[in-house]
Amino acid sequence: MKRDIKYCVIGAGNGGVAMAGYLAMMGYSVNLYNRTHEKLIPLLKEKTINLTGEVTGSGKLDKVTSDIGEAIENVDVIMITIPAVGHSKIAKEMAPYLKDGQIIILNPGRTGGALEVYETLLRERKRNNIIVAEAQTFIYAVRAEDATQAHIFKSKHEVSLAAIPATKTDYVLELINDVYPQFTPAKDILETSINNYGAIFHPAPTLLNSGHIERGMPFDYYMEGITPSVANVLEKMDSERMEIGRMLQIETVSAMSWLEDSYGGFGRDLYETVQNTPAYRGLKAPGTIQTRYIHEDVPYSLVPMESIAILLGIKTPAISSIIDIAETIAGKEFRKIGRTADKLGLEGLSIAEMHLLARQGRISKKRYFVEEVV
Amino acid sequence: MKRDIKYCVIGAGNGGVAMAGYLAMMGYSVNLYNRTHEKLIPLLKEKTINLTGEVTGSGKLDKVTSDIGEAIENVDVIMITIPAVGHSKIAKEMAPYLKDGQIIILNPGRTGGALEVYETLLRERKRNNIIVAEAQTFIYAVRAEDATQAHIFKSKHEVSLAAIPATKTDYVLELINDVYPQFTPAKDILETSINNYGAIFHPAPTLLNSGHIERGMPFDYYMEGITPSVANVLEKMDSERMEIGRMLQIETVSAMSWLEDSYGGFGRDLYETVQNTPAYRGLKAPGTIQTRYIHEDVPYSLVPMESIAILLGIKTPAISSIIDIAETIAGKEFRKIGRTADKLGLEGLSIAEMHLLARQGRISKKRYFVEEVV
Repeated sequence: MKRDIKYCVIGAGNGGVAMAGYLAMMGYSVNLYNRTHEKLIPLLKEKTINLTGEVTGSGKLDKVTSDIGEAIENVDVIMITIPAVGHSKIAKEMAPYLKDGQIIILNPGRTGGALEVYETLLRERKRNNIIVAEAQTFIYAVRAEDATQAHIFKSKHEVSLAAIPATKTDYVLELINDVYPQFTPAKDILETSINNYGAIFHPAPTLLNSGHIERGMPFDYYMEGITPSVANVLEKMDSERMEIGRMLQIETVSAMSWLEDSYGGFGRDLYETVQNTPAYRGLKAPGTIQTRYIHEDVPYSLVPMESIAILLGIKTPAISSIIDIAETIAGKEFRKIGRTADKLGLEGLSIAEMHLLARQGRISKKRYFVEEVV
Repeated sequence: MKRDIKYCVIGAGNGGVAMAGYLAMMGYSVNLYNRTHEKLIPLLKEKTINLTGEVTGSGKLDKVTSDIGEAIENVDVIMITIPAVGHSKIAKEMAPYLKDGQIIILNPGRTGGALEVYETLLRERKRNNIIVAEAQTFIYAVRAEDATQAHIFKSKHEVSLAAIPATKTDYVLELINDVYPQFTPAKDILETSINNYGAIFHPAPTLLNSGHIERGMPFDYYMEGITPSVANVLEKMDSERMEIGRMLQIETVSAMSWLEDSYGGFGRDLYETVQNTPAYRGLKAPGTIQTRYIHEDVPYSLVPMESIAILLGIKTPAISSIIDIAETIAGKEFRKIGRTADKLGLEGLSIAEMHLLARQGRISKKRYFVEEVV
């Protein structure tokens, strides 16, 4: 038991509330941070989060705060649960308060999150002795009504995780496996970044159900939203994603196999497997088309995948067309906003150098690293 | 009155039944042809079509047949109402029986229909003294339960039409304006082909409502299916279409203005205008994703538009992404199946030469025309 580990959870959304509540329920010291104070108000008096669903119980938090310095003071592990759009910003905000050896875990990193946060800290702190890890997906399927309670539909059986530097992955797992034994080591953050199944399950079903979502009539996102034809599109996108993984010599499994591994789903194809994943039952579709499933998963998952594919000379017509439609529907230039290979520092690197960057967070070849590391 | 004109209507689908019924009701001699005999069985005894909705009454047909020779024998005007996928085939089947001076009207041609039929007849008959016209859209919003009755939601106020050769457009209009005064002359078939609003209104709302359509729960296709975000995509596609039109020096109006002109719709944007187009009320979405709205409008409307845009050096990201998604969802290579600029004989032509081809159905520059015309 490692009950002396102190956690900070960043973000009081669905995931953050569930994670903070669970860690506290398991006896750990937990601070919960949220950028806006309003969201925390219901928690200020009792500081207690109630969990229902697969996990039942309650946990009492140590601190509930919108002061980042106070939130991460003396904690060992910082669990980031905010959308990827905020990763770089929160890294900048934490930078002045971080102490060497603290561990940041992105839950999840989407594609390239750990690399982006690591680079941001490198720039802000000149040197970087912070471990930045990313989980390949969020550990729960969860919905929270407010900051005092969360309903956990299901915990995933297995979630891979990698750290920068990669030599610290096992160390991170050792610390957190006591409370979350589901985390398993990935080779490096390229593996967690390419095995990003939100990229497959979030934008396309949302777009292909645009009308229904915008009419505001609720429906089950996975069970009803992923019809056989929608599943066909997902399978095409997923095969493009796997092709990127193969080129990068990364271990990757299909979205279908991943559903089997994570939730015990089963079936002959992706459509059947989704239907036979009870964890997804009851998860409602977003109430608007302007959702994280578009505004986060397109620029921070699909855009970097497409961009890396271009570097590798791979065509991704299904992924690219979903980005195109998302740009049109959201009226945003996601390819400009998003994490491109260029922004992640991957451009001009060989595949071996990409892995070196992923494992070390820097390679001497890149001039701006040299300048800042000395 | 030109009651001595004899019509043949090809195709006993929604549109064909309504058109045949109306022409007969107005006192014209009408033959109705359908490829499969089964569809005609309910009509064999009484040969009478009942119309409800905007037009109420009934019309008695002359012949009801699945013999193409019998169907078009001694008729003046042949109204083609079958999907564009069948245009070339029906042209081949009619070729041996056609008599000089007969008029074929495609209702509608989609994009490039008249050109394709004209070329097919040129190849089949060596010389071509048939007039081939295309309407820019179908004249009715209509649904038919079976071949004996159709419900006409609304006739459009105005439908443009062009003939090959273009010098015969006025002659064709003179013949049919007696019964259909809504038809107005277009400059040439490039104009009717680019002003193809089915390309805008059919594939994208279907795809962006894929889940709902495939779940089989009925909804109003236009009123419910075209939400503000879906309308944004349509406006983007429409602006790409208009850009093609401008480059081709074709008169074109936006889909929004077209709704105003055709149905008296009104509003500040396309979404509002669709909502304020009562003619669209009650028109249900297709019951399957494998619908004409995909299998016809993608290869015979969007594919030729994209292909012409490429010739002209115009980018069409919204149109192209809808084609991409349609290919994935339908599992068909619509760009290979469809009417490309190459297949329409437009490749390598200047814009002036494209109009020459559109007006004459042939230009001496193209070798295969020279060979076959002599």
